[in-house]
Amino acid sequence: MNIGFIGLGTMGAPMARRLVDAGHRVTVHNRTRAREEPLADHGALRAATPAEAAAGAELVVTMVADTPDVEEVVFGEHGVAGAIAAGALLVDMSTIAPGATRAFAERLSAAAGAAWLDAPVSGGSEGAVRGTLSIMVGGDAADLERARPALSVLGSTITHVGPTGAGQVAKAMNQVIIAGTYAAVAEGLVLGLKAGIDVEAAMAALAGGAAGSWGLVNRGPNVVRDEYPLGFRVRLHRKDLGIALDAARQLGVPLPLAALVEQWETGLITRGHGDEDVSAIGRVVREQAGLGGSQADEA
Amino acid sequence: MNIGFIGLGTMGAPMARRLVDAGHRVTVHNRTRAREEPLADHGALRAATPAEAAAGAELVVTMVADTPDVEEVVFGEHGVAGAIAAGALLVDMSTIAPGATRAFAERLSAAAGAAWLDAPVSGGSEGAVRGTLSIMVGGDAADLERARPALSVLGSTITHVGPTGAGQVAKAMNQVIIAGTYAAVAEGLVLGLKAGIDVEAAMAALAGGAAGSWGLVNRGPNVVRDEYPLGFRVRLHRKDLGIALDAARQLGVPLPLAALVEQWETGLITRGHGDEDVSAIGRVVREQAGLGGSQADEA
Repeated sequence: MNIGFIGLGTMGAPMARRLVDAGHRVTVHNRTRAREEPLADHGALRAATPAEAAAGAELVVTMVADTPDVEEVVFGEHGVAGAIAAGALLVDMSTIAPGATRAFAERLSAAAGAAWLDAPVSGGSEGAVRGTLSIMVGGDAADLERARPALSVLGSTITHVGPTGAGQVAKAMNQVIIAGTYAAVAEGLVLGLKAGIDVEAAMAALAGGAAGSWGLVNRGPNVVRDEYPLGFRVRLHRKDLGIALDAARQLGVPLPLAALVEQWETGLITRGHGDEDVSAIGRVVREQAGLGGSQADEA
Repeated sequence: MNIGFIGLGTMGAPMARRLVDAGHRVTVHNRTRAREEPLADHGALRAATPAEAAAGAELVVTMVADTPDVEEVVFGEHGVAGAIAAGALLVDMSTIAPGATRAFAERLSAAAGAAWLDAPVSGGSEGAVRGTLSIMVGGDAADLERARPALSVLGSTITHVGPTGAGQVAKAMNQVIIAGTYAAVAEGLVLGLKAGIDVEAAMAALAGGAAGSWGLVNRGPNVVRDEYPLGFRVRLHRKDLGIALDAARQLGVPLPLAALVEQWETGLITRGHGDEDVSAIGRVVREQAGLGGSQADEA
């Protein structure tokens, strides 16, 4: 396929590379243009603007940071909307607001006659490199089939969850559930740490039962050690939680756990922990219980 | 082994039966004595009091509702402490307060020269019937070895987590983590339900990633359907959370998620939902978002 790819960050760069490797004709653009160079060395074409990346493409992928960034690359000066072919397809794989997504899709359709799929991902940079992302897709089912040859290179699970914006809602659900689950894991573990029991043994026992979760198994040890290597950054999770909380507010859904965790994350960022893994939520729970340092410091 | 077994409720009755089936000489007692009859028909001996069940036993198992019940059967009139042999072992498999456990163990040692293991369980009535409970043990490692021939009949996982009371702390951790994890699952799913996306598809996609948990996979569908069949009762989980929150308060550990969920459970019990599964936490999250009825009612 003839693909325009805009946004070569931690996620976008390895995704674009996989599309090149799969034999697609990929034209890349990034705001910081130097980031295009490794992709060009790898066989991609370069475009000076989003419009240039979109011109002649059957599929345009956007993978940028936030809602305003999508608006800029699509509708800004030299944006995708000015060049994308009628009947072509924009696949926004960024994590942005569901409501804005619906508005952008209507606007692109009206301006250029192009369709929109929202297709945010989970699975992190490792999933981007390996092509094992989980892709949550909102939009028309027939459009998803048109995009599938590209998406199947990027993800091992592709789930159609409803009309335009539904993919972003599913991603918001993901971040809300992670927030509360990680915080719950931290509460349980800090109780055990403060009581002085063998928390690693308890963690193993609990992991097999109704308290079990990916977070307990894979991030619980971070809380025990009070070390939070990446992973997924606190500042990015807080951005995503902010999107989820805004969407929830518009829908009239109170999310007290997610809101509390978002506040904790704000404090973590203030104190210089924004680039730690999101399991650093455990740092807050530890500190509130007077377990400031590493476990070794406590012993 | 010669085993006294006190407490033949939903959990205790099938556990005592398994010990009989394994060839142990089991003497059972229950406050409501009629509950002893099916066990007697199955080959157990009956005792009129806890003391009588304890007399001559190498091992006395208690499986009763709460801290005051353990105190009553051990230290009350005709209690275990008046009859248990010096050098015998009491294994309390009830879920009670860690602090009271340590006090009870000292008191039993002083009064009768008998040792104490706290060995609360998870895995529910199905685990009790099948012998697949997870048993979290606090106390002396040598005492655990003495109890192992009986415990291995009851559980498939036996984890020594520290000294006396540590088993109860591990059980408290379990209930704290369940509280927050189930609430997190409910928040995510209710956001999706209110947004009108295909929540079952989203749930399946999320289950394989960092948002995945036993609760999402096994109890998420309850929240989607707004039906909460047993399971583990809300009123029992609230009792256990109360124990955990008391222990945490004594240790100076704030647990805001667990405390919020405990309040929600109080409201559920008030409104007649105390005998639903604990995933009825989702009922509160749904109601707060204006999703009162079943999903069918919303459609």
